[in-house]
Amino acid sequence: MSRKISNSDKSWVQVSNDSDFPIQNLPFGVFKKGVNDLPHVGVAIGDKVLDLHALYSFGYLNDLPFGKSDFQNAYLNDMMSHGKKACSELRLRIYDLLHEANTELSSSSEHANHALYNQSDVIMMLPIKVGDYTDFYSSRDHATNVGTMFRDPDNALLPNWLHIPVGYHGRASSIVISGEPVIRPKGQQKPNKDEPPVFGPCKLLDFELEMAFVTFEGKPLGESITTKEADDYIFGMCLFNDWSARDIQTWEYVPLGPFLAKNFASSISPWIVTLDALEQFRLEGPKQEPKVFPYLEYEGNKHIDIKLEVSLTPDGGSENTICKSNYKHMYWNMNQQLAHHTINGCNIKCGDMMASGTISGPTPESYGSMLELSWRGTKPLQLNDGTERKFIQDGDTITMKGYCQNDEIRIGFGEVSSKILPAN
Amino acid sequence: MSRKISNSDKSWVQVSNDSDFPIQNLPFGVFKKGVNDLPHVGVAIGDKVLDLHALYSFGYLNDLPFGKSDFQNAYLNDMMSHGKKACSELRLRIYDLLHEANTELSSSSEHANHALYNQSDVIMMLPIKVGDYTDFYSSRDHATNVGTMFRDPDNALLPNWLHIPVGYHGRASSIVISGEPVIRPKGQQKPNKDEPPVFGPCKLLDFELEMAFVTFEGKPLGESITTKEADDYIFGMCLFNDWSARDIQTWEYVPLGPFLAKNFASSISPWIVTLDALEQFRLEGPKQEPKVFPYLEYEGNKHIDIKLEVSLTPDGGSENTICKSNYKHMYWNMNQQLAHHTINGCNIKCGDMMASGTISGPTPESYGSMLELSWRGTKPLQLNDGTERKFIQDGDTITMKGYCQNDEIRIGFGEVSSKILPAN
Repeated sequence: MSRKISNSDKSWVQVSNDSDFPIQNLPFGVFKKGVNDLPHVGVAIGDKVLDLHALYSFGYLNDLPFGKSDFQNAYLNDMMSHGKKACSELRLRIYDLLHEANTELSSSSEHANHALYNQSDVIMMLPIKVGDYTDFYSSRDHATNVGTMFRDPDNALLPNWLHIPVGYHGRASSIVISGEPVIRPKGQQKPNKDEPPVFGPCKLLDFELEMAFVTFEGKPLGESITTKEADDYIFGMCLFNDWSARDIQTWEYVPLGPFLAKNFASSISPWIVTLDALEQFRLEGPKQEPKVFPYLEYEGNKHIDIKLEVSLTPDGGSENTICKSNYKHMYWNMNQQLAHHTINGCNIKCGDMMASGTISGPTPESYGSMLELSWRGTKPLQLNDGTERKFIQDGDTITMKGYCQNDEIRIGFGEVSSKILPAN
Repeated sequence: MSRKISNSDKSWVQVSNDSDFPIQNLPFGVFKKGVNDLPHVGVAIGDKVLDLHALYSFGYLNDLPFGKSDFQNAYLNDMMSHGKKACSELRLRIYDLLHEANTELSSSSEHANHALYNQSDVIMMLPIKVGDYTDFYSSRDHATNVGTMFRDPDNALLPNWLHIPVGYHGRASSIVISGEPVIRPKGQQKPNKDEPPVFGPCKLLDFELEMAFVTFEGKPLGESITTKEADDYIFGMCLFNDWSARDIQTWEYVPLGPFLAKNFASSISPWIVTLDALEQFRLEGPKQEPKVFPYLEYEGNKHIDIKLEVSLTPDGGSENTICKSNYKHMYWNMNQQLAHHTINGCNIKCGDMMASGTISGPTPESYGSMLELSWRGTKPLQLNDGTERKFIQDGDTITMKGYCQNDEIRIGFGEVSSKILPAN
């Protein structure tokens, strides 16, 4: 019944060539028409959002295993609970309905008008009720940069790094949607080695450029997901800004890891781009030497070519692109991360979120944090308004964008953009 | 309307003197009458469980702000979402209904028969849908023991420890109820410093004796909870076994903290004892020197005298008490932990769980883990069957019990008891 996806296909909904959301993408999100309206699940197409609750109500999704409450919902989790196969079929059905050769929906102006809204007219909501959130540390360049700055340039990578996709648990409750301002955290810091700690607003506030993936329900506690099975447990991806308070982190993180330095907020982009939509941008990962343990071996191309950029916009000022990186620079891929996370029997639930860790590339302009870009404050960034930045100031807006692009098609993630407000 | 609680009060439900659950306790849990029955919220009284869904259906809870779905529910979260005042009033109403001088329920044998079950006849369920789980590290004796063993006996405490209630994020999905077996995890270890890491079942499996508290909904992101306000955000406490794979932990935990060494399982006791029931067992905490930052200062007695013990039972063997400790040994109390957790604006949600960290006391028999009891394996424990243990073996059952006791009354937590199964 479903149409095969082709890069040359067009939708009857107009989509500009530079849009992140052609018919080949169809990412899922949650939106409200107005503050007092109920949230609905939607799909992005060009600069429109397609209301899946409306589609369902009009009967266009009848042959699929979803119910009304899956789409009139504050989160994607219930829809996702039907699993990968059902969600892939749903996306193909939407593809078909939006295809220029299909007149089912396009021929009914009443239905189409009630199912399509301008993205600029709706309010995007946090799309996932995140159960557990895990942050990895999977960019070799980032880990090397941090090790060089804080430890030993000659032994920048810690002994476990090339054996383990190092990860740690983060805070799910403070994951917020793009657009929500972030308040500068307060906390303990120890700026001077020989003096006692001090308390106050963070002085070294940073972003971390990351991508996150969202999971389907995994296996029961005690079982593991292999690298081969991992794709079946991943719904899709979004942009992820892992806000970091460097001074709080330095003082608190030994021996149990980052805590208050991270859990004041993490910001994500509103659209979850399915793994299905990203398949054509897969590429080979780096050769892993030393050889990894068998449970971390994988077959095929499991890395993804996603162009990423970060900009900083001072309050009332103009945008400065400060970083250009790529998700392909990851050393450990998602399949390895998920296999590692579950090798001890840890269970994964529908709606868990797992972030990549800072995505730095090999060149200075590809470093994915202020810490690295300003090399711990020693090389301040020059902005186009004449000011400079070592770390993020109050009023600054950090915007991350990401997209896949080849000669035929662009599959994008939109953006995650958040302004920093002064500490309370 | 509600009766004032007195230690001399009795219930018309028979309660033995050594019961953890006199009328002055009334902890909340979730139970099923049979595998195929719907879960109901219940309260423990003696060796019975009082079915709150039945009480509600019979009209005994009419004047309270709860609905049917709060009690016919797989978790306590919906009931707790009504807040501290409502939950305290609910407990007082139940106190009144169970009081020997009150005949409302006791005089209706039909109602009483439909509302009271033997605990031995029901199935206890995981009572909380845990949103975020945080583990602290708040016992000075434990931190000192670990520092002495792994770092420097002369500088056992890390520089931040006396300033910060050190904590880290843990895995919520793998928190399981007492009685559920725990499968020995597999993972990477590096037993020999000069050789590459190896992969296999954990060889140094350990328990950690902890208590956990469960929170009500906190404040919005960006706001903080003071030590003075903290009690209003704490529903109650349970026993918590923070299973730990020491060999996996040693290899993985630098620099971002424990991950697979912990997230394969944590086990909790089924009954949540309210903070209200514990008030009379409050006592003064240790003098904190150096002086803490103002946000960590507190007034009044905020520590609690809870006697704790751990036993190890080999497969088919008899019980060996291997640890006797007390929650009063904590350096940082719950009020300080919650104030610290939110000082950066981190938000707390209804149903978050926060564990204390291993509760070790000053004497060797009070150490709350095998790591400390066997002093890293150098002093094996002698069991009553003639065998010895450095760490936990397959088939061993670890049982933790906890109770408050004074001359008048015993308020107990029941137990968390779990058997270790061989690795898959």
